[in-house]
This record gives sequence, structure tokens and C-alpha cells, in this order.
Amino acid sequence: MLITPVLLAGGSGTRLWPASRKAYPKQFVPLTGENTLFQASALRLSGEAPGYRFAAPVVVTGSDFRFIATEQLAAIGVDPGTVLIEPEGRNTAPAILAAALCALDQDPQAVLLVAPSDHVVPDAAAFRDATGRGLEAVRQGQMVLFGVAPNRPETGYGWLELTSAPDGEMPVLPLRRFVEKPDATRAAQMLAAGNYLWNAGIFLFRAADILAAAETHAPDLVAPVRAAVKQARPDLGFFRLAPEPWARLRDISIDYAVMEKADNLAVVPYGAGWSDLGGWDAIWRDSPADAQGTVTTGPATALDCRNSLLRSDSPGLELVGIGLEDIMAIATPDAVLVAHMSRAQEVKQAVEALKARGAPQAVQFPRDYRPWGWFETLALADRFQVKRIVVKPGGTLSLQSHFHRAEHWIVVSGTARVTIDDEVRLLAENQSVYIPLGVKHRMENPGKVPMVLIEVQTGAYLGEDDIIRFEDVYARGQGAKG
Amino acid sequence: MLITPVLLAGGSGTRLWPASRKAYPKQFVPLTGENTLFQASALRLSGEAPGYRFAAPVVVTGSDFRFIATEQLAAIGVDPGTVLIEPEGRNTAPAILAAALCALDQDPQAVLLVAPSDHVVPDAAAFRDATGRGLEAVRQGQMVLFGVAPNRPETGYGWLELTSAPDGEMPVLPLRRFVEKPDATRAAQMLAAGNYLWNAGIFLFRAADILAAAETHAPDLVAPVRAAVKQARPDLGFFRLAPEPWARLRDISIDYAVMEKADNLAVVPYGAGWSDLGGWDAIWRDSPADAQGTVTTGPATALDCRNSLLRSDSPGLELVGIGLEDIMAIATPDAVLVAHMSRAQEVKQAVEALKARGAPQAVQFPRDYRPWGWFETLALADRFQVKRIVVKPGGTLSLQSHFHRAEHWIVVSGTARVTIDDEVRLLAENQSVYIPLGVKHRMENPGKVPMVLIEVQTGAYLGEDDIIRFEDVYARGQGAKG
Repeated sequence: MLITPVLLAGGSGTRLWPASRKAYPKQFVPLTGENTLFQASALRLSGEAPGYRFAAPVVVTGSDFRFIATEQLAAIGVDPGTVLIEPEGRNTAPAILAAALCALDQDPQAVLLVAPSDHVVPDAAAFRDATGRGLEAVRQGQMVLFGVAPNRPETGYGWLELTSAPDGEMPVLPLRRFVEKPDATRAAQMLAAGNYLWNAGIFLFRAADILAAAETHAPDLVAPVRAAVKQARPDLGFFRLAPEPWARLRDISIDYAVMEKADNLAVVPYGAGWSDLGGWDAIWRDSPADAQGTVTTGPATALDCRNSLLRSDSPGLELVGIGLEDIMAIATPDAVLVAHMSRAQEVKQAVEALKARGAPQAVQFPRDYRPWGWFETLALADRFQVKRIVVKPGGTLSLQSHFHRAEHWIVVSGTARVTIDDEVRLLAENQSVYIPLGVKHRMENPGKVPMVLIEVQTGAYLGEDDIIRFEDVYARGQGAKG
Repeated sequence: MLITPVLLAGGSGTRLWPASRKAYPKQFVPLTGENTLFQASALRLSGEAPGYRFAAPVVVTGSDFRFIATEQLAAIGVDPGTVLIEPEGRNTAPAILAAALCALDQDPQAVLLVAPSDHVVPDAAAFRDATGRGLEAVRQGQMVLFGVAPNRPETGYGWLELTSAPDGEMPVLPLRRFVEKPDATRAAQMLAAGNYLWNAGIFLFRAADILAAAETHAPDLVAPVRAAVKQARPDLGFFRLAPEPWARLRDISIDYAVMEKADNLAVVPYGAGWSDLGGWDAIWRDSPADAQGTVTTGPATALDCRNSLLRSDSPGLELVGIGLEDIMAIATPDAVLVAHMSRAQEVKQAVEALKARGAPQAVQFPRDYRPWGWFETLALADRFQVKRIVVKPGGTLSLQSHFHRAEHWIVVSGTARVTIDDEVRLLAENQSVYIPLGVKHRMENPGKVPMVLIEVQTGAYLGEDDIIRFEDVYARGQGAKG
């Protein structure tokens, strides 16, 4: 049997600010290991397992993240399959239905494994085994939810009530009902009762079955999603869902819209560890701690700290904690969060407060990822800006000019092919070039290693939107991101 | 009457790390207002007051801080007087005796007001008034200590026991005895008793009297200090105390060495506010707080925080606190401290721990101050380094060359005069120049405004010590700091 993974990768993850920001959300950040959560999810849902194998995934994400997603897949050798671009986030129901329609288009029997790409599942083999256990139910037309064995009275999750406690005999169990996020008393009762599992938001079903259920329980969603898929515009290998029908959709989760109303549901119990990394408290809980319960990451030093998280996200940023208890401190080069561990869910509000104040740190990272590589501002002052620009092998910036700034380029690593007006030349390490205001120019990396260049801009206005694009291999427009 | 201020400015203030570091200690940092503590101290001890006027100060500091000290005095229009450079810190006794010998050399009747330059005294007029009240006792050969009216049972200070409580009648009061840093019970008793004041470490005496007292109570100090002063080497307006006799001196405070054994002591009570800023808890206590007792400085946001200090020392660094109580968080671009308020005195140990690990943040700032201006590293990678260099009007870097690196210079503000081999030329804003490896070069600012230059270095070795100096207006040697 073939299973098509549907990777939901559109979330903006502000609860892990400042390490995760709207412009580069948590699924694309290496939070817990060498790979990002998105990469780990894609690897977990690839290859063969007893009884089935995974097809190339359907990735659903936002326009800003399309190159990040395909690059991160390429880096781990996973075929990107189909990448659907949501015109804007509309929660999980529209995203999953769009993925189902795409899959159905290729195979009327398509089976989908739908999973958020920002969760942690430490034991991939156990997860693939659980997937296999759910397949017989799927064959019989059931829609399968993954129910995680709880290890604490968690009030932040929805729970699933089973008709009986899992006993290891039945591959799947019938669902009695969904339980909304409980209060602490109710959570403790459910933990003790044994027949309650956490709803992980991971689903296994035939594409046809979820669409049929949507037709029955949320018919208003189906037509606009169908239109958005039908009118999707192919764009350099991506499929841009049509914005007009998409805009008509409700912002609603698949649980609320469909699953909670369906009667063909089964639950596959899963007990090998899972976290939604829904806040820094979850990161702290899921990371190895010292004898006092304190977790340190990066250049961080804990002196007599208990049950705390000290995380520095930059090699050049020393973080020191003294005498802390139940405190989380997350340091990045342009933003620092310090909070009581019990207040992890309020980070969202803090980000809103920063946004209201106009602080760029609320949404932006200092490093800006583009299809050709990335750049970061090293210094910004009244009439000049210094940037580090890294261009991947084969990367090509657009042919452009600026009204308000001149640029000096100095190659410090690798080789650049530089176009200035009609002249094309190669710049080796330690060579430099000057681009006067108004002159057409382009930078490429024709080599086999990353090209690193220092750009010094001078002028009265240094905004990213002072750009006239003449040609762009990545099909971006005037004034759009570089 | 003429009073010579003696400003003690050699301290390394690690208790306010990371804002204060050994390479740029707290007296030179604008911690509480626009001026630095050193500047505020110099201003407080300048000009005229009823009954006396201040002479130009004697500043005692370390070699690394000599240009910072004179620049900061110049910036506030205070004549630098005499700047004594200690070969190494030896606590207050040697420093004060050296200053006394210098003052005596010019005036056998010299009266000294000795003050640390890293304290906060909010009411300069009240302080000058208290100084005036001590003068009659000094005329009669007494040595006067400043006793601060306590407002809490502080265990971190030494206290002064008077024969009776100050009543506003007597300009000075007799000292019964010194009390070492007390425990909490003893401190509470002293606070309640009324005839105990804090020892502020501020003294008013004739130079001849403190030297006579030292001859009596600490005779081993006097000869080496005298030799160090006698053999002092004038150097561009500074006096470098001779290292050999200085190395023989005990590291001891004037209190332990002399004052506690002297019998000609009087205390001038001072009640108008004083802080030694001996830790971040003191900064918190002495700063205006919100209704929940939380102090924020710089781009810092407190959400439901109580009795906490949130301080960001950089305009580009957002600091957010959520649900904190009794927590101090101090964020700088390369180091962040988070500690419980009660652990302020342990910051010192934390700095030691960082130093042991070889973290440069333990002692260095990213910005490096030099006699001609300052520079900072914007980016440092395997084979290149990018620096921002700011040269003051009239500033001149040494004529130098490097074995291992080539340099690109781009002027982004002001005008540079650049010497390359035998050629001298002016570079205006937006002009650049290349300095090949091995070639003699020099940079100057001949203009009236600061010159800002971006330097991109490339090469296999980029250490500051790859420098051959041919000429240097600031008389520095080979491989010494830039």
C-alpha cells in the first residue's frame, strides 16, 4: 500500500519566540537536533515500512516559506513531491482538504497520513509501526486519529475518550468522544482513568473519505477549496492555490470542522513519546537536564539554577543564570525572552505587544533567507549599511538597479560572477567592485562552494524596496523581497 | 581654601557585568544618566563652593583607561589635572598615598577630597555642603570620613559607630569605632540605634596628615609609594608610577591600612542619598520603578513582573520579561545575565567562571576604545573580518603594516587621509582603497567630524597582534593594542 504524507508547514509558531518568528517559524528551525522539525517529519514519513511505503509528500505552506521548504527537503534527499502554497493561513481544515483533492487527482484510492511538521516524535520506527496498525481500519473506510499515551495531566491539549483503555491487543480502538482542553481537575481524572489519550492532530485516512466527511459535515468548505485547487497556478514547481476562493474560507481546524462530527473514527494508540513543542516549557521538559532539572543550550552557564531553561541561540552570545528557579531565558542576537516557566503560553501576547510597538524582532530575523541564499545586516547607520551576503552555488540574484544607493562589493570567500551594465566579469576572493547609483547590476555564484561577499551600501535611503528588477530567475516582482 | 579632588578610577567593577567589564569598568559607563559615573564625580568635585574651591583633580587609574579618563574629562570641560597610572591595582591605600605625595609636592598645605569615581551621589550641592562642614576639622588636623545616613539594614557595607547620633548641630562628630560588614541582626540593631552611619569610603584630609598617619600605622607602604612616585615616568601628559617599587606594595585598603588605626578621625554626616552601585540590586533600588516595583531600561518590556530589573544596553536588542518576581535580566549584544535579585553579589563568581572557560565576554567589550577613537568587529569568519572603525577629528592611527592580511577600506562618513607606501591622499564619503599585504599604511581623520570607515580584512591570520608599527603619535609598541 502507498501512503501519501501531507506535511502541514504553514504555522507561524510565535510561542517559541524569539527562536521562532513569523518570518521563519519553528518547523524550519533546528530546535532539538541537527535537522529541523520539518526535515525530521519528512524523513519519518519517507521510505518503506512493513505493509506499506510512503509516496513523495504533499507539503502545504505559505509563500514566504516555499524556498525554505524545498531547500530543507533537498538537504535531506527527500523528493519534494507537491508543494501547495496557501494564499493565507486558514487553519488545518482547508489545508488538508486541498491536499486531499490534489492526492485524489492522481489516485482515487490515495491514503493520506496528515501530520503537522512542527512536532517532535523521537521514535520514528514506533511511529511507522503505529501507522501500519491503523491501515486495516482505513481500508474499511475508517478515519484514524493518533492518540498519544498521556504522562501528565496536560491542560493545553485536546483529549480523546476511548470506549476502553488500550491493552495492546487491538490495533485501533473506537473513539467515544473528543474532550476539549480540560481544567486541571478533569485532566488529572482523565490521566488516572486510563481510557483517555491526547489528540496529536495526526490523521490517517483515504483522501476520498475525508472529502466525503467534509461534504457531509462542512459542505461550505468543499467548493471554495475545490475552486482554489482547480485554479491553482503552477509557479517554478510550486502550486499557488487561487487566492479568491481561498479568501472565502472559514479559518477552522479539521477537528472542529469535520472530525468531531464524523462517526467513522478510530484511534491508534501511540506510546513512544511525542511533543507538540507548544511552548518553551515543552522544550525544557523534552530536553536532557542537569541534576537540578536545568537545561542549558548553546553558550549558557547555570550557577545554582533549578528547573530552568537557559538557551543561547548564537555562538557569540554568553548567557549566564544565577540562582534561578522555574525560569526560562532564551537569548538571540536581537531579542531576549525571560519568563517564569508557568507563563510559557503568554509569549504569544508578548510578541503581540512588541508588534504593536513596531519592533521588527516581533516577526523578522536578522538573517533573511532568499531562494539564492541569505543575507544579514551587520551594521546600519544613518547613511550606510553593511551586509554579509551568502550565495549558494548556482545562485543568481536578480538583475537590478537602485535609485538611492551605491554599493561596494568585496568577495571574501568563493567566486562571484558580476554583471555591471553590459560588462560581465569574475571576482575572486579579496577582489572588489564598485556599483554606482542607478547602474544595472547582478551577482551570481558560478562556483561549487558558497560565495561570501561583504556589501557596503551608501546613500540617503537604504530600504530593501529601493530595487528595480530587470530579470529574475525566481520570478519576483518590483520592490518585492530581494 | 583650595581642595584637590582625588578621583579613584582604577576599579574593574565586575559586579555590574555584563554592562561593566574589566576592559571598560563601570565608572566609565553611562549607567544611570547621560554622564558616566566618572564624569559625574569629576563635575561634583569641580568649581567653587562657599568657603572653598576645587583644584584640578588627581586621577588615579590603570594604563588601559588613561585615554578614556582624559577624554571623558575633556567632554565635560574639566581640566584633567594630574593623571597617575598605576602599574597594577593595589587597592586604595597605595593609590591614595601616591596622590597625596603628588599633591604635597605642589603644595605642602594641600587638602584632599578622596572619592571613588564609581559611586552615585544624586545631590551634588548637598555633597559640597557636607564637604564644607568638614573643613574646620581638617584645619585642626583631623581626618574626616563621610558617614551616610542608612535607610536599610545593609549587610554589604562597613559601618561607622559615632559617640552620639547626628543631630544637625555639630558639623562633624567623633568616631567611636569602625564596624565590619555586619550580619542581618546586627545591621538591624545599628539601623535602629541611630548613631551608626555607612562608611562611604570618601575622605577629606590634608595630604600631610594622611602621610603622617601612614608613616605611623603602615610604614611599609610609604617608602615603595614614594619611590614609585619619585621614579614616575611622564608619558604624553600621564604619570606612570614606577612598576618595580609598586610591585612590592601590599594590596590593601586605606581603611585597613591606616584609618582604622588612626585616632584623629571625625565623621561628617551625609543624608542626601548615596549609592556605591555595588551590584545590579543597587541599580534596581536606585532607579525609578513602575507600580509593581519593576525597573526597565532601554528597549525592555515587562509583562506582569514584580520587583525586577529588565535592562537592555543596546537599541537593537529587545528584552521581554513575563511573570518575573525578584529577577534581574541585563542584556548586551554579546552577553546576557539573568539572576535572582538576592544573588547580585555572585555575578563576580559568574564572571570568574566565564573567564576560566576562556569566554572573551568575561573581560572584553565588542567595542574597543583607543586613543584615536574606537572600533568593533561586525563579522568574523574563517578568512575574513569586517570592522567598523570610528576616528575622532584629529585622530591618527599608527603607520603600520601586516604580514598576514590585506585590507579594503571604505569611507562611509567624514573624510580620511590615507597613507599607502609613500602616497598620501584624501578619501571622501563613498570612496574606497585597497591595502595589499605587507604595505605600510596609515589612516587619519583630518576633518572636523568623526570619520567612519568599514574595513574588510582578508587573510589566513587576522589577530590584532599582526601589526608592525613604524610611527605612533600615542607611543605604543610592536604588537600592542591598535
